[in-house]
Amino acid sequence: MAGMWKDYLKRHHDRFLEELMAYLRIPSVSAQSGHRQDVQRCAQWLKDHCESIGLKARLIPTQGHPIVLARTPRRARSKKPHFMVYGHYDVQPPEPFELWTSPPFEPRIQGDNLFARGSTDNKGQHFVHLKAVEAYLKTGQELPCDISFLIEGEEEVGSECLTPALQKLKPELDVAAVVVSDNGMPSLKHPALTYGLRGVTACELTLIGPNRDLHSGIYGGAVDNPAMVLCQMLAQLRDAQGRVKVPGFYDDVQPLSRLERAQARKFPLKDSVMARALGVRSLFGEKGFLTVEQRAARPTLEINGLTSGYQGEGSKTIIPSKASAKITCRLVPNQDPKKILRLLKKHLQSICPKTMRLHFEPGHSGKAYLTAPDGPFAKAALDALEMAFGHQPILMREGGSIPIVNEFKQVLGVDTLLLGLGLPDDNAHSPNEKMSLTAFTKGMHMSAELWQNLAANS
Amino acid sequence: MAGMWKDYLKRHHDRFLEELMAYLRIPSVSAQSGHRQDVQRCAQWLKDHCESIGLKARLIPTQGHPIVLARTPRRARSKKPHFMVYGHYDVQPPEPFELWTSPPFEPRIQGDNLFARGSTDNKGQHFVHLKAVEAYLKTGQELPCDISFLIEGEEEVGSECLTPALQKLKPELDVAAVVVSDNGMPSLKHPALTYGLRGVTACELTLIGPNRDLHSGIYGGAVDNPAMVLCQMLAQLRDAQGRVKVPGFYDDVQPLSRLERAQARKFPLKDSVMARALGVRSLFGEKGFLTVEQRAARPTLEINGLTSGYQGEGSKTIIPSKASAKITCRLVPNQDPKKILRLLKKHLQSICPKTMRLHFEPGHSGKAYLTAPDGPFAKAALDALEMAFGHQPILMREGGSIPIVNEFKQVLGVDTLLLGLGLPDDNAHSPNEKMSLTAFTKGMHMSAELWQNLAANS
Repeated sequence: MAGMWKDYLKRHHDRFLEELMAYLRIPSVSAQSGHRQDVQRCAQWLKDHCESIGLKARLIPTQGHPIVLARTPRRARSKKPHFMVYGHYDVQPPEPFELWTSPPFEPRIQGDNLFARGSTDNKGQHFVHLKAVEAYLKTGQELPCDISFLIEGEEEVGSECLTPALQKLKPELDVAAVVVSDNGMPSLKHPALTYGLRGVTACELTLIGPNRDLHSGIYGGAVDNPAMVLCQMLAQLRDAQGRVKVPGFYDDVQPLSRLERAQARKFPLKDSVMARALGVRSLFGEKGFLTVEQRAARPTLEINGLTSGYQGEGSKTIIPSKASAKITCRLVPNQDPKKILRLLKKHLQSICPKTMRLHFEPGHSGKAYLTAPDGPFAKAALDALEMAFGHQPILMREGGSIPIVNEFKQVLGVDTLLLGLGLPDDNAHSPNEKMSLTAFTKGMHMSAELWQNLAANS
Repeated sequence: MAGMWKDYLKRHHDRFLEELMAYLRIPSVSAQSGHRQDVQRCAQWLKDHCESIGLKARLIPTQGHPIVLARTPRRARSKKPHFMVYGHYDVQPPEPFELWTSPPFEPRIQGDNLFARGSTDNKGQHFVHLKAVEAYLKTGQELPCDISFLIEGEEEVGSECLTPALQKLKPELDVAAVVVSDNGMPSLKHPALTYGLRGVTACELTLIGPNRDLHSGIYGGAVDNPAMVLCQMLAQLRDAQGRVKVPGFYDDVQPLSRLERAQARKFPLKDSVMARALGVRSLFGEKGFLTVEQRAARPTLEINGLTSGYQGEGSKTIIPSKASAKITCRLVPNQDPKKILRLLKKHLQSICPKTMRLHFEPGHSGKAYLTAPDGPFAKAALDALEMAFGHQPILMREGGSIPIVNEFKQVLGVDTLLLGLGLPDDNAHSPNEKMSLTAFTKGMHMSAELWQNLAANS
């Protein structure tokens, strides 16, 4: 039976690429109002395409760009398990144009890569799942599960309209799990299931000293300097190995399991290769943890920006009136973002000298995400990855945050399988974005296998 | 005999104010090319005015704006001592206009103050000396010394053309000392002779980590953060009381003499008044020194600016590629600016972790200035101040740097008497600049006395 979809995927491969390129030609840049019509056109194109492959599709209007909701046709009282694929049809702005080798919205194949804005992030990655489902629908081979596609148009601008829409659509999204391919794997030889993401919490700290920038000759020595005090306070928040020194910061951190640590040891990316690619003299990090653990499974405190005083050419002899820092923490289970912000604020207040006024502005927050790496759906996904890629897949956590995954958990009550098809050199959000054609082809196989495995494990 | 000039100053006081206001109406803003003609016109006005009061005046062309050089008429083989008054006829830009109560170039008298751009800095202050000399020349009372006026037009843009001009004019500027009124006194009850200025040395420190801003989710924890390392390095340069922790920094500092410390105790400005005016919760400073000593007679290290990563609205989750700080040190005798920069660079290199590349860019430097506070010229100045203001003058150092004073020492080989007539609320370089009419009137008396005293002490 598997032969039917496999054969279909093979025979229609070139058409699939043509279709994907047509999809990529639509400059659906959600952040730029000049592309509003293009984003709408892209949603319509996708809805029409879903219908053309045999799905029932409709546009869900939102305050912003519409959501494309498409589902496999099913009988009134289907007993099949129901899964959802999430993706987004909007893309990052393409600027700066001058750094692109070929125009971002004129897809170009070179070697094993398809270059275009949106190729890996995310049109190419969710297209893989659409084509796998098409292969079932067009060959008359029965799908073992019902599948809904929810493809939104505002991921690159914060997905603000998604949660209200999810709440409204909840009755028909009675799914057992969500499948997302909007992230990465270490290499084509290392397909991966991501079972954890870090959370994040942000704040801005401002120290205010004198009521104006002061002449450093007239006052220097008797009036404290906010820029210096800021440095002295921030310096105390982290040690030289990256361990956070805010009291209580690690209290709620869930330790890594033996299984997780064993998986981390299999992670293929070499430190020296990464250091070279980033141009750093050496990596660093918390003692007792592997690089991949430091990057994905340990919490951090980062200064994202510093601002104080004179920043122009040459020098200006002032004591700045104020100094500020933007700070974010990456969080892991079971750290509570709000509690972390409270601890940080309290600590900063306790070390602020009486020469300064402290202003602490909390920012956005999101909890870490973690699913069981050894549950039945995870096993189904790992088997599908191995079958398609011909290599044993790895289980990994990723260090970034994908807030919508927590929304799926909260609103729909289900876990998400993160099956990234992006490669480290795919340049998501950067010029010369691309997708690997091998990842595209094997991704379709993986998806076709996945529905069998998920149904079998339901 | 003193009665002659005293009477003249009294009788012509209103005319002097009218003349000063005419001088202030010329918007001689040297920094703005749109005012080039005005600056030229101002030089011509001043030269004509010098001639009208009996001086021999000429314009000295430079690469920039001309210098007005005017001298008292003297016999071919004058045995009189020769002194020079330095000042500048150019003014700071007046912006922002909206903060001025009345237009900056329409002088306005209100109460004891004359408001106008350039009133205290510096037209009003050197005009005082011109009028005192006029009083001698116009009453036929013999001046006990020869006097040259060197009034430049580029002080507010760095006096770059002054040193070459000084070198050329050196043969005719065979002076015994220079008199400058381009600074301040604590109050009208505390006329002051400034006998020391701090030096300055500047640099910029940049730390470079990864070759681009990195996603803090993907790399945070394994790649060090330049903004954090910058803070940790800068935090080590100064303690919480302002004492500099760069090894060797204090090695060459000349201790304050008993006389100096006694004078410092007489300084009238209260800490609480200053703290309130600056809006700081409390002053701070090196233990064992008075505020006035911390501000003027002790060296400092200040961060003048910090720049790293994202500085816009909201947050951006990056590890910045680099972070930089602008630093200046105020120096005292006998610190060598070049040596201080070497010590600072060496120390920074020694504490820079191996995760960062360090770039150290030296900036401008100037040595501290110190004259004997108990020499014969100083005594002459103190007596003139006391006679004119009716209060015992104080001897003080100022914390700022006036680089031209070192040029006079280097090129002409003489000391400078700094007899500031500005008050702390005169708003030099700020909107609503003003000069105290009392300071103007008493300043003319002081100047008239000064020439007698200087000649007597030569």
